[in-house]
Amino acid sequence: MNRSAIGYILGYVLMVEGVLLMLPVVVALIYQEQEGVWYFGTAFACVLIGFLITRRKPKSFLFYLKEGCVATALSWIVMSIMGAMPFWLSKEIPSYIDALFETISGFTTTGASILSEVESLSHTALFWRSFTHWIGGMGVLVFLLMIIPLSGGSNMNLMRAESPGPSVGKLVPRIQSTAQILYVIYFGMTVVETVLLIIGGMDVFESLATSFGTAGTGGFGIKNDSIGGYSSYIQWVVTIFMILFGVNFNAYYMILLKKWKKAVKMEEVRYYFFIIGISILIIFFNILHLVGNVWDALRHAAFQVGSIITTTGFSTTDFEQWPQTSKTVLVLLMFIGACAGSTGGGIKVSRIVILVKTVGKELHSYIHPKSIRKVKFEKKPVEHEVVRSTNVYFIAFMLIFAASVLIVSFEGKGLVTTFTSVAATINNIGPGLELVGPIGNFGSFHPISKLVFMFDMLAGRLELFPLLILFHPALWKDAIKKRKM
Amino acid sequence: MNRSAIGYILGYVLMVEGVLLMLPVVVALIYQEQEGVWYFGTAFACVLIGFLITRRKPKSFLFYLKEGCVATALSWIVMSIMGAMPFWLSKEIPSYIDALFETISGFTTTGASILSEVESLSHTALFWRSFTHWIGGMGVLVFLLMIIPLSGGSNMNLMRAESPGPSVGKLVPRIQSTAQILYVIYFGMTVVETVLLIIGGMDVFESLATSFGTAGTGGFGIKNDSIGGYSSYIQWVVTIFMILFGVNFNAYYMILLKKWKKAVKMEEVRYYFFIIGISILIIFFNILHLVGNVWDALRHAAFQVGSIITTTGFSTTDFEQWPQTSKTVLVLLMFIGACAGSTGGGIKVSRIVILVKTVGKELHSYIHPKSIRKVKFEKKPVEHEVVRSTNVYFIAFMLIFAASVLIVSFEGKGLVTTFTSVAATINNIGPGLELVGPIGNFGSFHPISKLVFMFDMLAGRLELFPLLILFHPALWKDAIKKRKM
Repeated sequence: MNRSAIGYILGYVLMVEGVLLMLPVVVALIYQEQEGVWYFGTAFACVLIGFLITRRKPKSFLFYLKEGCVATALSWIVMSIMGAMPFWLSKEIPSYIDALFETISGFTTTGASILSEVESLSHTALFWRSFTHWIGGMGVLVFLLMIIPLSGGSNMNLMRAESPGPSVGKLVPRIQSTAQILYVIYFGMTVVETVLLIIGGMDVFESLATSFGTAGTGGFGIKNDSIGGYSSYIQWVVTIFMILFGVNFNAYYMILLKKWKKAVKMEEVRYYFFIIGISILIIFFNILHLVGNVWDALRHAAFQVGSIITTTGFSTTDFEQWPQTSKTVLVLLMFIGACAGSTGGGIKVSRIVILVKTVGKELHSYIHPKSIRKVKFEKKPVEHEVVRSTNVYFIAFMLIFAASVLIVSFEGKGLVTTFTSVAATINNIGPGLELVGPIGNFGSFHPISKLVFMFDMLAGRLELFPLLILFHPALWKDAIKKRKM
Repeated sequence: MNRSAIGYILGYVLMVEGVLLMLPVVVALIYQEQEGVWYFGTAFACVLIGFLITRRKPKSFLFYLKEGCVATALSWIVMSIMGAMPFWLSKEIPSYIDALFETISGFTTTGASILSEVESLSHTALFWRSFTHWIGGMGVLVFLLMIIPLSGGSNMNLMRAESPGPSVGKLVPRIQSTAQILYVIYFGMTVVETVLLIIGGMDVFESLATSFGTAGTGGFGIKNDSIGGYSSYIQWVVTIFMILFGVNFNAYYMILLKKWKKAVKMEEVRYYFFIIGISILIIFFNILHLVGNVWDALRHAAFQVGSIITTTGFSTTDFEQWPQTSKTVLVLLMFIGACAGSTGGGIKVSRIVILVKTVGKELHSYIHPKSIRKVKFEKKPVEHEVVRSTNVYFIAFMLIFAASVLIVSFEGKGLVTTFTSVAATINNIGPGLELVGPIGNFGSFHPISKLVFMFDMLAGRLELFPLLILFHPALWKDAIKKRKM
């Protein structure tokens, strides 16, 4: 294993994080908040450690998939450990485990919080909290790919480990250019949303924090009632942008190239909008009698559907009070998740489509055993390897899910809370139902459960395997063997 | 499609059912119950229709997997439609949908009931209800294989469609002999249990009905409190036999051949007992403070674990009142299910083991991309086709599960009821939690939900695909095309 290259990347990640931590310092200066000191201190520490590590250049930048996964998983863990420092040092979140939970929840764009109320937090903390969503949404390593030179297919192995979805599509032949294009789209859409929110009457701070939460499909709010207190206009803007950030970014690249037809015809995107449409319809009719007003019912239905399927987790209303059908639809949407190649989490629409088609093909083979039919997706036959890894992904997902539910059940908190708290973390959503519903939080869980949730959030964001291999004995056996040699 | 052979098999199935229906008639004669008339009438109708159908012998007995699946699925549906008649005609179950639900629940060895109390039913009805479990446990087609001559691999295709588990193992080269051996073991163990129950003080009727429910891993009780009112001795006997009927029958065949070592070393059976042991342990410590007495706690824990993992569904206590951890363990056991090649339902231990190993192999391939390692099970490398079909099975299972939950959620009955009612039917268990808990029943559901449950019970018992292909358009397109030709 190329350990020196992994170390080098970790060092770079720390330096980037140090630079990013200067943004909350600026916020602290503007609002004259003393908490800024801790952000500055952490930023300084990050840059210093990163600088020291990166002074020794690795002999080779050759990277296999294994190194890509390990580097990615360790980067996210290191980033979270450092990112949690200022919350803890400033005593705004007194327990370090809680601070770490909050930071992992931020970077993984989950938005699950251990805080029972957020309005008493400093602007600095609120900004950093929401900003972690924006950083995690597109991924730090994708960012690094723009600046670090890696040889040959090595950067592809890094990107594969961090990017969501069953297969990684390079937009353009060069990975570096792909990463740049993605960041341009991401940045541009965030700016547009921020402007639209400011037009709607939000101040700059509020609109930035809300845009960060939307763009990363994170969901940390800066108000105790999330987006519930804002105007209908703002709620609609957030709804539309949540849904837009859940679209496969390839579609936007097509639009940038003015290949409109190709963008509109993307199969995954079509299914995504279809699922959203159906879900809004079901919930709309289901809650109409509760809400009373057609427009309000439509707004709440659209907002919550957009929020859950994109795994954002903002809320405009306490959907815990909704009828069972609506809640069941939301729970199912939690697992479906957004498109691959978006900032959203969950199993991903493309995977679900491939899974359904795999079952369809199996049935077909019972009836016509001699026909050789490949599963088709986006008008192309899906490679056997993609079908296989999608299947394995789904199985691993369900096994982790079941194991997590079992461990968390020792809390004795009720089946719905246990089940949806795991669903809300592994799918990077944030709120679940009952105790972890829109007005609840994760503060009352035992530290062991919190560790399980942290694991699930990271596993969900990193698409399971990069995190799982860290715990595989064979990896450590190899590492020890090489050290001895 | 060889429709005439399928028709022929259906005719045979009806005749067999007609003969089996004479058993409750005997019970009616013994207890002097008038309901017997309707059982006799149905028996007569079955034999008559079956006789008329089987008069025309098919030109060919050639059977492909497709025909095997269609014949199996239709057999189970036809058997249920006729088997429900006497319940309905005798007005003991006034609604035909309910009678059909109860019969499908019986044949599929689910044990979910729409009756709120059973003690007022006639002995005849109680006997038929429990007897359907015994018939469905081993399968009618496996029985037919002993008597109908099918050519070449055709009987294998029938057996594959009806037998539980990822791959069908023939015990001996001839399928007919395999079927005979299985029935001998099944019959023998049922007799032993009956005798042991009679020794424990049950009368012959009670012990027979209880043994039928245990042997088929069904779970219909003849008392409103299931097995709760009986002595500890009887509860232990039932516990042990439930667990024994959940063991892969191959193990018993090995024992019959005095290959003790081979039987004891069966990987699936070892995992099965391991899961049972761990689960009993967790629940024992979890309920100890509630029950107070060590022996009672052990008895209840062992009984419920045995009942749920084998998907029987008997109960000795209202586990709805147990702490969350115990309930979660039971819910997870629902999905694991018994061994392949047993009479139990669920996903099956062997499938779970193969799924876990598949994930392990995937992780290994991330670390050593060049190593070619096959998943091993029962000390043999698992064929690629078995891994693939296990994966697809799991995916199809989850998709049907999610779709069922969505439809049933329109009842508005609460997430736990909705979720566990689907889990209890698709895994052929019987009781779930809350409204469908051990003291609840399925009577209050809307007919649409009942149809979903019936579909799920049949899908679960027939391992999904044989039932699913009945709904595949390609099957009907073919059938219509051939008719036109």
